[in-house]
Amino acid sequence: MEPRVTVVTLGVADLDAATAFYSALGFRDVAPPGSGVTLMQGGGVLLGLWDREHLAEDCRVVDSGGWGGVALAHNVRSPGEVEAVLAEVAAAGARITRHAEETAWGGYSGVFSDPDGHAWQVAYNPGWVLQPDGSVRL
Amino acid sequence: MEPRVTVVTLGVADLDAATAFYSALGFRDVAPPGSGVTLMQGGGVLLGLWDREHLAEDCRVVDSGGWGGVALAHNVRSPGEVEAVLAEVAAAGARITRHAEETAWGGYSGVFSDPDGHAWQVAYNPGWVLQPDGSVRL
Repeated sequence: MEPRVTVVTLGVADLDAATAFYSALGFRDVAPPGSGVTLMQGGGVLLGLWDREHLAEDCRVVDSGGWGGVALAHNVRSPGEVEAVLAEVAAAGARITRHAEETAWGGYSGVFSDPDGHAWQVAYNPGWVLQPDGSVRL
Repeated sequence: MEPRVTVVTLGVADLDAATAFYSALGFRDVAPPGSGVTLMQGGGVLLGLWDREHLAEDCRVVDSGGWGGVALAHNVRSPGEVEAVLAEVAAAGARITRHAEETAWGGYSGVFSDPDGHAWQVAYNPGWVLQPDGSVRL
């Protein structure tokens, strides 16, 4: 297996509503029309949105209905940008679960939950350099 | 917010065991020694592993203990490679939850769960071209 993640798909209750939320954050749906799924370029990975029941069925997993131990991170270039992004996502309907603060690893971060409960960390890491597409190469 | 996902972090029960599993699949830990987290380059995104309790606390979410509506996809270049990857991950201790089959969208895919229950789709999509780093640009 070559080491890579190609797509991260989030199960959602209402595809149109979830797509509207991520569109408000700046993501753009590039899936072919009528495909029943939303696909957005998220830097070096595709971010997908799909009906949560369909995703569970497709993966043959039992859906417990809660958080399942996955968090996405959106890294930015400064502490101020962490604050700005958290304000922006809150205005778009996200719930801030941890306000921005200094972290034990010398960075600055906060966390929000999207309308379906998926956790996103918004983080500034002074040791990381963002590539032009926003990805990080360690 | 610029549209990007920088890191996908999977909460795990045993960091050493999970790191060993992903190492067996070809991922390589590039986190600084002693950081208490595993970070692996996953094409255009970083794949992180962290203690699930710590991840839940960091994100201020309630952990229901099950699957939480997120799936990762690992795309490959041929149907045969789907079969080969599924055989490889099964040998490394993954559970195949859906054997490889033709999909409604004209591709070929199967699904496995890692030892912590995180769902991975292994997929061949004839309409997608993989970049040199394995990422897909739509």
